[in-house]
Amino acid sequence: MSEAVTGPLAELAATCRWPSLPDSAQHAVRRTLLNAVALAVGASRHEAVEHALRTYAKLEPAPAASVLGRPEMLGVTTAPLVNGIAVHVEDFDDTHLPTVVHPGACVVPAVLAAAEHAGADEAATLAGLAAGVEVALRVANGMCPEHFDRGWHVTGTAGHIGAAAGAARVLGLDVAQTVVAVGLGATQASGLTAALGTMTKPFHPGKAAADGVEAALLASAGFSGPAAPIEGRRGFATIASPRADGDVMLRGLGERWELEANAFKPYACGIVSHAAIDAAIDARGELGGEEIAEVVVTVNPVVLDVMGIRDPADGLETKFSVYHCVAVGLVDGAGGTAQFADALARSGEIVAVRDRVRIIVDAEVAKGAARLWARTAGGRELRTEIRHATGSAERPMTDEQLRHKAEGLVAPVLGDDGAGALVAACTGAGDGPDVRRLVAAARPATARAGAQDPRGD
Amino acid sequence: MSEAVTGPLAELAATCRWPSLPDSAQHAVRRTLLNAVALAVGASRHEAVEHALRTYAKLEPAPAASVLGRPEMLGVTTAPLVNGIAVHVEDFDDTHLPTVVHPGACVVPAVLAAAEHAGADEAATLAGLAAGVEVALRVANGMCPEHFDRGWHVTGTAGHIGAAAGAARVLGLDVAQTVVAVGLGATQASGLTAALGTMTKPFHPGKAAADGVEAALLASAGFSGPAAPIEGRRGFATIASPRADGDVMLRGLGERWELEANAFKPYACGIVSHAAIDAAIDARGELGGEEIAEVVVTVNPVVLDVMGIRDPADGLETKFSVYHCVAVGLVDGAGGTAQFADALARSGEIVAVRDRVRIIVDAEVAKGAARLWARTAGGRELRTEIRHATGSAERPMTDEQLRHKAEGLVAPVLGDDGAGALVAACTGAGDGPDVRRLVAAARPATARAGAQDPRGD
Repeated sequence: MSEAVTGPLAELAATCRWPSLPDSAQHAVRRTLLNAVALAVGASRHEAVEHALRTYAKLEPAPAASVLGRPEMLGVTTAPLVNGIAVHVEDFDDTHLPTVVHPGACVVPAVLAAAEHAGADEAATLAGLAAGVEVALRVANGMCPEHFDRGWHVTGTAGHIGAAAGAARVLGLDVAQTVVAVGLGATQASGLTAALGTMTKPFHPGKAAADGVEAALLASAGFSGPAAPIEGRRGFATIASPRADGDVMLRGLGERWELEANAFKPYACGIVSHAAIDAAIDARGELGGEEIAEVVVTVNPVVLDVMGIRDPADGLETKFSVYHCVAVGLVDGAGGTAQFADALARSGEIVAVRDRVRIIVDAEVAKGAARLWARTAGGRELRTEIRHATGSAERPMTDEQLRHKAEGLVAPVLGDDGAGALVAACTGAGDGPDVRRLVAAARPATARAGAQDPRGD
Repeated sequence: MSEAVTGPLAELAATCRWPSLPDSAQHAVRRTLLNAVALAVGASRHEAVEHALRTYAKLEPAPAASVLGRPEMLGVTTAPLVNGIAVHVEDFDDTHLPTVVHPGACVVPAVLAAAEHAGADEAATLAGLAAGVEVALRVANGMCPEHFDRGWHVTGTAGHIGAAAGAARVLGLDVAQTVVAVGLGATQASGLTAALGTMTKPFHPGKAAADGVEAALLASAGFSGPAAPIEGRRGFATIASPRADGDVMLRGLGERWELEANAFKPYACGIVSHAAIDAAIDARGELGGEEIAEVVVTVNPVVLDVMGIRDPADGLETKFSVYHCVAVGLVDGAGGTAQFADALARSGEIVAVRDRVRIIVDAEVAKGAARLWARTAGGRELRTEIRHATGSAERPMTDEQLRHKAEGLVAPVLGDDGAGALVAACTGAGDGPDVRRLVAAARPATARAGAQDPRGD
């Protein structure tokens, strides 16, 4: 791959201006922000988050950036690490479907921490988000699926590069400095899919975010780096993908925004069974409270390959059980984190319905589709069909659905009023003179007075 | 690669005891320690070190670990980053010749910072050094040269894994926790050879050291990770080398110590011209102060390929000029950092001799060999021949030579007495109850009173 890639991407990042972005790109950036922040708040008490937070708090960093959803502050490179873990740990975050990059978990924590540290305004912050997500997705487009198939967790690799670009933008680096920052991101691009199913997986976007901020700080201090760290004979894309295509990375740069293809998960479980949940939720609407006697859902064979656990024993297993997915759709009419918590794995009401679910696989059914047939206790038959799952490219989550998802994640932590305020802050972001107001909306009210940090001063 | 590798390596690390190591391994570990610490002190004012130090000091970390050669302290994950840059930045550090890993720059800063933070004794610290270097070299042995040839800077990749193993040992992690730490190292293993010639290159071992400490801290806090992050279908070695050989990684584990093959550079320049410097230093001994009229040095063609700069303009260029190497050998009888400083590139005395040096290449001359012929102003002819360069596997640096190298690096920073004390502390390490005494010997006397840290408290 010999096309000059790093330079044009760095220039895009360094010169990105929020008011100049098209409405459709601004809309997509605000949705990425809202989704990531809500997930971080929602998972802010997760075990993996607690482990990381405890580790860094013990090191007593000077408080420079907020841990979302919590009173603690950490350092500018440790807060994004904890927040990145939180965004990704429930497997409920955004997904760029062509590459399976989860850009929000890498870029949002990096840009927010850098912006908070620097006292940036909202326009610079949103420009940083746009630049970072755009760079991550374009680099991934030129390497995937081969890069992922080889065993690289592309969220960790492309995420490093995007987070560096985003942090560079929000810190106001020039093009040459941004090349250095992007190079520091590229030379640290890493993450093994061997880590899937462990806490080390959400650590990947967390570390991408942290390293991205660090890269921008070092570049701004005068560090030097390679001119072609992405392309080039020894560039990351060249050596970590059997197909590295610089043309794809640059196609329509500045005219077409790949970040508009970022998609949002409606349900906190494996994406291949989202259509089955859609079908179950539709069927619930027609049940009118009647008891269900029998349910048959027909799906593509990949669904059972990935999500075939018949009797999930805990929350993590329910995320890989299409039977559980159908049951919570029918009973709760929802598929949020509450539906995949440990408690629901053993709930009598859910288990009773789950046991009545049969799955039929049919290669003729598309991967994002599902057909449901059900019989009620009273003998009534129902049929629903989903051609494209909610959250797919063909049927993206509406703003209303995304707001509902965010409120469901945030309210248990910050209360209903807090959730509403945070949603408003993210969806209306753009003109505020200091991003700290927005970040404060993602923390408990007590923390907003600035009363608490891990050092207690 | 299906052999279980991570488990046995983690067990070696977690159970490594300093008093049980054979004398030859203990001797090699102490030499690795001395060489790395002396280099860190010597380069403690290098521009790349200053940039990184300034960046991290601004973040005001709580002082937990020392910056070698300086009064400042940084955090337990930022001090090793700065120290790792310092060890590697002059390209004068140790080299495991079969793989070109520079293990000291990764493992020594990680283990010292973790040990200082934890208040470990010298025996635990040296056990951590042994474990970390051994793991790094064994992993590299199973991946190189193919891994390096693909474009991976193996010091950054294998160094991540070794630094994590070493930090885990010094923090007292058990085998299962050490597997997690090693996995966090492996999933962050990175570093592009595209970065050679820039500050981003020494950043690689610095970041390996920092990430190694962080990995051990997270593993100790309860983090979970993959069982087979090195081997395994998606393990790092499997995906980042076309040849990944677990048998090679484990051969003779616990019986034979690969760390004994760690070599030390006598001269602060490209290794391929070390034999030419040796020949010039020998010739200087025979000159007896006579002026030189003409010099011809015959070497393998690789020497001119790598080090062919005829008229180097600055210090960095002199490191890649065999002409300069021969001149400083003849004039100064040495090849330390002083001989490759900017000032000597333009020194009249050096340039006069340099202009009289001719290089002949001959594929029959071995890579580590050189023949020198010279004629003095008085018409006398001299001949010297080097079959194996100083620092090669066949002719390792003697303890005396290494001590001399270390003193030459340290004395300009800590004075002659300070240099002697530091050499004694490293070569005699083993029984001390607190490693902080050893670390203090690597800092200015004013710092040893604990008077200064970046926060000033």
